[in-house]
Amino acid sequence: MKIRLRSLVLFLLLPVPLCAQKQPADLIIAGGTVVSMDAKRSIQDDAAIAIKGDTIVAIGRREQIAAHYQSAQTLDATGKLILPGFINGHTHVPMTLFRGLHDDVTLNDWLYKYIFPAEAKNVNEDFVRWGTRLAAAEQIRSGVTTFADMYYFEDAVAEETKAAGMRGVLGETWIDFPAPDNKSEAEMLAYTEKFLRKWQGDPLIHAAPAPHSIYTCSQKTLQDSAALARKYKAPILIHVAEMKKEWDDSRTKNGMSPVQYLDKLGVLGPEVVAAHCIFVDEADRKTLAARGVGCVHNPSSNMMIASGVSPVPEMLAAGVAVGLGTDGPAGSNNDLDVMEEIDLAAKLAKVTKNNPLALNARAVVEMATVQGARALHLESEIGSLEAGKKADIVVIDLNAPNAVPVYDIYSQIAYSLKASDVNTVVIGGRVVMRERKLLTVDEQAAVAKAREYGKSVAASLGMDLKH
Amino acid sequence: MKIRLRSLVLFLLLPVPLCAQKQPADLIIAGGTVVSMDAKRSIQDDAAIAIKGDTIVAIGRREQIAAHYQSAQTLDATGKLILPGFINGHTHVPMTLFRGLHDDVTLNDWLYKYIFPAEAKNVNEDFVRWGTRLAAAEQIRSGVTTFADMYYFEDAVAEETKAAGMRGVLGETWIDFPAPDNKSEAEMLAYTEKFLRKWQGDPLIHAAPAPHSIYTCSQKTLQDSAALARKYKAPILIHVAEMKKEWDDSRTKNGMSPVQYLDKLGVLGPEVVAAHCIFVDEADRKTLAARGVGCVHNPSSNMMIASGVSPVPEMLAAGVAVGLGTDGPAGSNNDLDVMEEIDLAAKLAKVTKNNPLALNARAVVEMATVQGARALHLESEIGSLEAGKKADIVVIDLNAPNAVPVYDIYSQIAYSLKASDVNTVVIGGRVVMRERKLLTVDEQAAVAKAREYGKSVAASLGMDLKH
Repeated sequence: MKIRLRSLVLFLLLPVPLCAQKQPADLIIAGGTVVSMDAKRSIQDDAAIAIKGDTIVAIGRREQIAAHYQSAQTLDATGKLILPGFINGHTHVPMTLFRGLHDDVTLNDWLYKYIFPAEAKNVNEDFVRWGTRLAAAEQIRSGVTTFADMYYFEDAVAEETKAAGMRGVLGETWIDFPAPDNKSEAEMLAYTEKFLRKWQGDPLIHAAPAPHSIYTCSQKTLQDSAALARKYKAPILIHVAEMKKEWDDSRTKNGMSPVQYLDKLGVLGPEVVAAHCIFVDEADRKTLAARGVGCVHNPSSNMMIASGVSPVPEMLAAGVAVGLGTDGPAGSNNDLDVMEEIDLAAKLAKVTKNNPLALNARAVVEMATVQGARALHLESEIGSLEAGKKADIVVIDLNAPNAVPVYDIYSQIAYSLKASDVNTVVIGGRVVMRERKLLTVDEQAAVAKAREYGKSVAASLGMDLKH
Repeated sequence: MKIRLRSLVLFLLLPVPLCAQKQPADLIIAGGTVVSMDAKRSIQDDAAIAIKGDTIVAIGRREQIAAHYQSAQTLDATGKLILPGFINGHTHVPMTLFRGLHDDVTLNDWLYKYIFPAEAKNVNEDFVRWGTRLAAAEQIRSGVTTFADMYYFEDAVAEETKAAGMRGVLGETWIDFPAPDNKSEAEMLAYTEKFLRKWQGDPLIHAAPAPHSIYTCSQKTLQDSAALARKYKAPILIHVAEMKKEWDDSRTKNGMSPVQYLDKLGVLGPEVVAAHCIFVDEADRKTLAARGVGCVHNPSSNMMIASGVSPVPEMLAAGVAVGLGTDGPAGSNNDLDVMEEIDLAAKLAKVTKNNPLALNARAVVEMATVQGARALHLESEIGSLEAGKKADIVVIDLNAPNAVPVYDIYSQIAYSLKASDVNTVVIGGRVVMRERKLLTVDEQAAVAKAREYGKSVAASLGMDLKH
């Protein structure tokens, strides 16, 4: 009796029964402040996360997790922030190799004088592989765990993304002119169908068709690519209402806005990821919300190209899921750092609305995490730290001079912390960066190859590099 | 004759005569690409810089410098960029300790509900010293070598700046209410005069009075502080035309714009550094140019507070010297990273002018270097790498994935490179950071103290920190 009573007392004092056998986990991240981004936006100090396979199995106080789970692999996150991995909702990763090629020109000049010729002369599968590797290194370093991409040779992008251990929604571009990979719609369709089949059921890669836009795709191209996506339950990636000219032309040719035109064609639906959405009026926002379209705001790109400013607060108010993207790293950013987009999304909304309350720190952190997941239609898998979700996790240091003091965690993430404060990154339970050391990408090989490509691209365009 | 002829041949083949004795230097930086920002904007590969004392004595090809100069101390910059140190033209460095304290509110609420009470309860000389140390660590890490500051206990700011080896234009605030240090104009005048006398002739510190603004200073305060500055040939730091309300009130009360009012009072002159200059029309820009006033554009702050957008292209076209500033790291940024301001200055101008050519990469790099020096009236000392100028130098790595390839150096600096790419910083010939290791600031002590201050500030305001 005496012994049993003492056990009972111990049982009441300790958070878990002593006799319980610990469950095995593959990885435990312990000791930091978990910024969960769950429905309650709960923040927990001195917490831990247990991971089995690619999935989070438990989150709780450190001692609770220690009592319930055991794992050979533990990451000590004491004094650090633990967040869901950032989601880059729109980019063109192989274009890292064109980074900084002829900036500060009009979009028209950039496209027709520089980028289309540069792509025609340089883009092949090898280019795409090396550009994707370089981008993976850059994105992981800034805490990106999932990205949505639109480019050519997208199957090579997928293979390199998988090799880097990153999660991707990867769209093969459909466009009404001969692309670097496919020269006709028939080729685009055949390539994309094979691509979609190959990656079906993959835990990391979501293959998709990416009809470029209404101004580069015919009605048939738009509808065929959408039909293909629906046949394979795949996402559809597309640029929507990015430019005033696109809106003007659509009004003239179609008698309606780009959003209404796409809706009329039956393209819009709950698998569509629409990049930019700058020229969207109230009716358009209602349509986007009603169709369950995810939108991706790209503040750096919209500023650099001078495209305009997406009405993000109004889109969120209408119930549209709005994520954040860097856009391509050439001519429109020029980096892949989503933490800068978090910061800029808030500041751009504030200054253009003449209202410092237009978009706050928490809202923009949501756009890079839980809203971003909704925008990519992956909210059941990623975007928050909760049992059952994929273990896509960033651990951020609070030890640099820019990181202290901390009065408000969301403010710190949005306005003070930098990509360089990201310490460790886990994607699907796999540690891809530990204490700033990349584990899945040969970074120096990618950097060296980028320098080589820089020279050959410049030579192909007859450029005289200044240095 | 034969021998003399051979010597002549050698002399013609080699860049320097073999017989010349090498001159002693205190530091040689060798092997990188020098982006000089001199009048020709010359860029030289495989270059070197020889430094004696706090001054650049020669810049040239690496082998030229090696032939002419010898130094015990050499920094190898092979494969790196070598630039003039960045100039942060407007900030309030001790406010690092208030970083992130109540963001996303109106400026009025922020000032009157949060910051003025927080300052009244917390700002003393110790606070100012630790805040300045933290800021020095953050600024050096992002390549800032000179900054202009406006705060209280500015003599303590000056002592800490000097100890950190940084160059500063440091303004003691004059304001028409009791400040944390001085409670009356008489005290402000006495404090500032002593402060100006103490630092006269200092190679790093330029002490100044800083009348806060026309909306917090009477005509007498403005004129007395300007007179004091002129007596000691000191700069004058002031906020000008930052807010719509300031402009409206000035029109109502003074019948003219803030710039015209300051000009009427005789305050404007070639020693004035005017922060913000958002609400400046064509006549104002002409006045600023005619008086030789330096202006400082703060894109992050103007966006975050939703103050408005300074007409930077028009100011530059009018011949006004326009530098860049971070503004304070609390409520208006929230960091001290001038490289982000370079990027934002271009992007903000482009998007708000609907013109991707509005402000280009080179122009914004100039604003952080040679234009910034003009804005602080220090163009004879700093802002470019030239023999005779102070040796304020940043060495930037090109080895991170975001740094390659390089097609255009100014584009790379403006849009792709980050504070985290800054490798080494030299100020006045002294190496203050070598390969990311700070040599003049005890960074971890400053970070630890900032955490302590975070707790005591929160407690003083009855805040319940969420974590």
